[in-house]
Amino acid sequence: MISHAVLDKLKSLVGPRNYFDSPEDKISYSYDGTPLLHELPEAIVRPDSVDQVSRILHLANAEQFGVVARGAGSGLSGGSIPSKNSVVLLTNHWDSIEEIDEQNLTAWVQPGVITARLHAAVENLGLLYPPDPGSASICTIGGNVAENAGGLRGLKYGVTRNYVLGMEVVLANGEVILTGGKSVKDVAGYSLKEWLIGSEGTLGVFTRILLRLIPKPEKTKTMLVFYEKLADAAKTVSGIIASKITPAALEFLDNTTIQCVEDYAHLGLPRNAESLLLIEVDGPESVVESDSTKIIELCRRHSGNTRIASSETEAMRLRSARKGAFSALARVRPTTILEDATVPRSEVAPMLESIGRISRKYNLTFGNFGHAGDGNLHPTCLTDERDHDEIQRAERAFEEIFDEAMKLGGTITGEHGTGLAKKRFLERQVGSAAIEMMRQIKGVLDPNGVLNPGKIFSLKPRCEGPLPRNQEQVKRFLEMGAFI
Amino acid sequence: MISHAVLDKLKSLVGPRNYFDSPEDKISYSYDGTPLLHELPEAIVRPDSVDQVSRILHLANAEQFGVVARGAGSGLSGGSIPSKNSVVLLTNHWDSIEEIDEQNLTAWVQPGVITARLHAAVENLGLLYPPDPGSASICTIGGNVAENAGGLRGLKYGVTRNYVLGMEVVLANGEVILTGGKSVKDVAGYSLKEWLIGSEGTLGVFTRILLRLIPKPEKTKTMLVFYEKLADAAKTVSGIIASKITPAALEFLDNTTIQCVEDYAHLGLPRNAESLLLIEVDGPESVVESDSTKIIELCRRHSGNTRIASSETEAMRLRSARKGAFSALARVRPTTILEDATVPRSEVAPMLESIGRISRKYNLTFGNFGHAGDGNLHPTCLTDERDHDEIQRAERAFEEIFDEAMKLGGTITGEHGTGLAKKRFLERQVGSAAIEMMRQIKGVLDPNGVLNPGKIFSLKPRCEGPLPRNQEQVKRFLEMGAFI
Repeated sequence: MISHAVLDKLKSLVGPRNYFDSPEDKISYSYDGTPLLHELPEAIVRPDSVDQVSRILHLANAEQFGVVARGAGSGLSGGSIPSKNSVVLLTNHWDSIEEIDEQNLTAWVQPGVITARLHAAVENLGLLYPPDPGSASICTIGGNVAENAGGLRGLKYGVTRNYVLGMEVVLANGEVILTGGKSVKDVAGYSLKEWLIGSEGTLGVFTRILLRLIPKPEKTKTMLVFYEKLADAAKTVSGIIASKITPAALEFLDNTTIQCVEDYAHLGLPRNAESLLLIEVDGPESVVESDSTKIIELCRRHSGNTRIASSETEAMRLRSARKGAFSALARVRPTTILEDATVPRSEVAPMLESIGRISRKYNLTFGNFGHAGDGNLHPTCLTDERDHDEIQRAERAFEEIFDEAMKLGGTITGEHGTGLAKKRFLERQVGSAAIEMMRQIKGVLDPNGVLNPGKIFSLKPRCEGPLPRNQEQVKRFLEMGAFI
Repeated sequence: MISHAVLDKLKSLVGPRNYFDSPEDKISYSYDGTPLLHELPEAIVRPDSVDQVSRILHLANAEQFGVVARGAGSGLSGGSIPSKNSVVLLTNHWDSIEEIDEQNLTAWVQPGVITARLHAAVENLGLLYPPDPGSASICTIGGNVAENAGGLRGLKYGVTRNYVLGMEVVLANGEVILTGGKSVKDVAGYSLKEWLIGSEGTLGVFTRILLRLIPKPEKTKTMLVFYEKLADAAKTVSGIIASKITPAALEFLDNTTIQCVEDYAHLGLPRNAESLLLIEVDGPESVVESDSTKIIELCRRHSGNTRIASSETEAMRLRSARKGAFSALARVRPTTILEDATVPRSEVAPMLESIGRISRKYNLTFGNFGHAGDGNLHPTCLTDERDHDEIQRAERAFEEIFDEAMKLGGTITGEHGTGLAKKRFLERQVGSAAIEMMRQIKGVLDPNGVLNPGKIFSLKPRCEGPLPRNQEQVKRFLEMGAFI
């Protein structure tokens, strides 16, 4: 519990208009896009300035409470769920695109800018901001950077990290630093921005972000390909990579997902197809033509039935088969657990087979879709959190799915982050020496553990007892050899 | 001084065949590609295995000496120059390309693989490893990753960081971790590999590196364009970017460099040209044709005189005008100080004007060349280290050049690293809070400061006195509040 006196200080710091602590407010900010996890914050604050963020962090260090930065709250690993004894720090009201520099192909944005809004703004100028998370229409750039979000264009264009040139960030101790800049090459000292990208709010609060843009491709061609056999879809994916074509999107849906999408969106998808690929190629017109001709031939050779968009409207319609997958699956049962076990792309077919086997073993319904081109799958369990037994089976199933992904040289999370949801699997993924290295860094940069406490890993000291919460305690622990 | 007893331990650890300490050996490893800086190591070791690297680091921690990993020693910021009380750890004998995975477009390589050898090996398979530092024919992948090397293809393809998927690394405490993997998307925990890339040997010793490859472009077109006026070359660069074309290379030479190259290589370059651009476009044939047509027209409009390679042999010849720039300049005077002040690409022309003004002010000869497309310039001072006065003027000139780069929103180093040569400018570049953050991380991950001591920044404690060198001293310092 944060004391009333401290909450009052917080309230006067941001002003009463930007301080919220009614039960309704607390409940509204107690969860994000992640099922099964929630925790009430002690209050919600909406800072007016970078200086206020800095002062909130000073107060948090002095008074020992947690600060959980939050964008749109659309995350899928619990990264923005409050922890006990914490306040939510809103950033989604900072939503200005401050500058688009057409000479240097960069954009300065505030962290609360919705990703799709940035897409539209730069596309108007003939530019592209490639990262395209599934939640682009609601998520924020700040959250994207905190989670190093991926998305549909990852295969050709990479992920959020590849487009962050710099940032203004408030560190745990309240200091404000500006790291990176418009020079696309910069190796002065350690690359602090690279350390902050994907750190899930545990090392700093972003207040401004400098992004890299690229010229918008001249043309895009969108096609849906249906397969009676999953194996044929997998062969098509391998065939495309082997033929040295890099599509902008190479997305996959399984039969369960196809059926749910059809129920939901009535796109005329063949319900008996075992698999569907959404393929997009982009670039100069001549390349799009020749690449798509080659791809269509490859699909045909592997018994794929291709539907090609003849207009942008139809392309949007075809894309919606993939983009609507999560929403369509989420309608079926009360609780939807969407994961992002990821494997090297050569292992997509074996991974899907394993997911099938595991879902049958635990008598669960899974829909599978995802980014086949980069091995980033979204096994999605359709369940009901009120059914305790089924939830336990789902948890065991996911544990086996993650084990399988790791066995195939993959990872427990390709683009959602570790947060709370994957925390218990992290050590198996990266090993104890790597976790220890992460803990040491967190320990030294945020010694009081004020930034997004309890996320990614726990800050457990080597000796028993509660976590040290102040300078004096840290010193005593050090004398005991707890940390070194 | 490392004691004889400790050196004997080291010798028996690696075996006498892999231990060197003759005066000739020490002198041979006392310098790298950086002028004016050198220091004798106490010994040179060539470990046989990852386990030996780990044991060397254990010994270094126990006995308090520094370990300086070294690839080809071609670095230009002094990153691999020994420090006092240190041994050189060779990695260039580990030069095997262990695997090229054509399905996942990845390669596992040992750190000592020469970059150009990897280029050739993957190009044979129709693939491309894009990072292309100027020193590609002699430098190693390990060094490239340690320095986050850039190069000629940075504008279109990015830098080394963008192609590192994972690594096996020995940390300062001797622990071996494997971080990253073949999944192109991976957000499990903090991204340790991103922290290690560009850390200049101060946080770990790479023993194996996993790289990302891309399909090799179908065609490349190479052209040289000569300008009577520098401003016209700058306008061409801006025009190309504005027309949404991204060349694979967009390189620049000034008149001094053109003359030196012509003296050296007799390529028939016009000696009166004030500037030269080397432009390469690559991609599918049709795109290369249309992009190069547009570029030629743009060059013509800005009074550029274009020479286009009609064969790969001629392309190599044209490229050698740029690739030979450093060697050609280095012939003129005994000492060549090659720097890499970098600015946003819109600021290249003002930056070149400032370099001209500063070189006149200090009565120095500068050749300028570099990566115009990404603002990464190489102002190169042709001097003589025996002329104390001229060297002092050169140092003052570079100080002003770096100040100017920072004023224009640029950086003191685009691709060479901070090492020893840029250390004194780093705080001005990144600010004291950022340096403090770097120090904290280094301090916690390498508390005894054994890895590449003294590079990037000094690990100065907050109180006076010598650096603590063991656990007991660290504790005493902590009690004094020296570090926290």
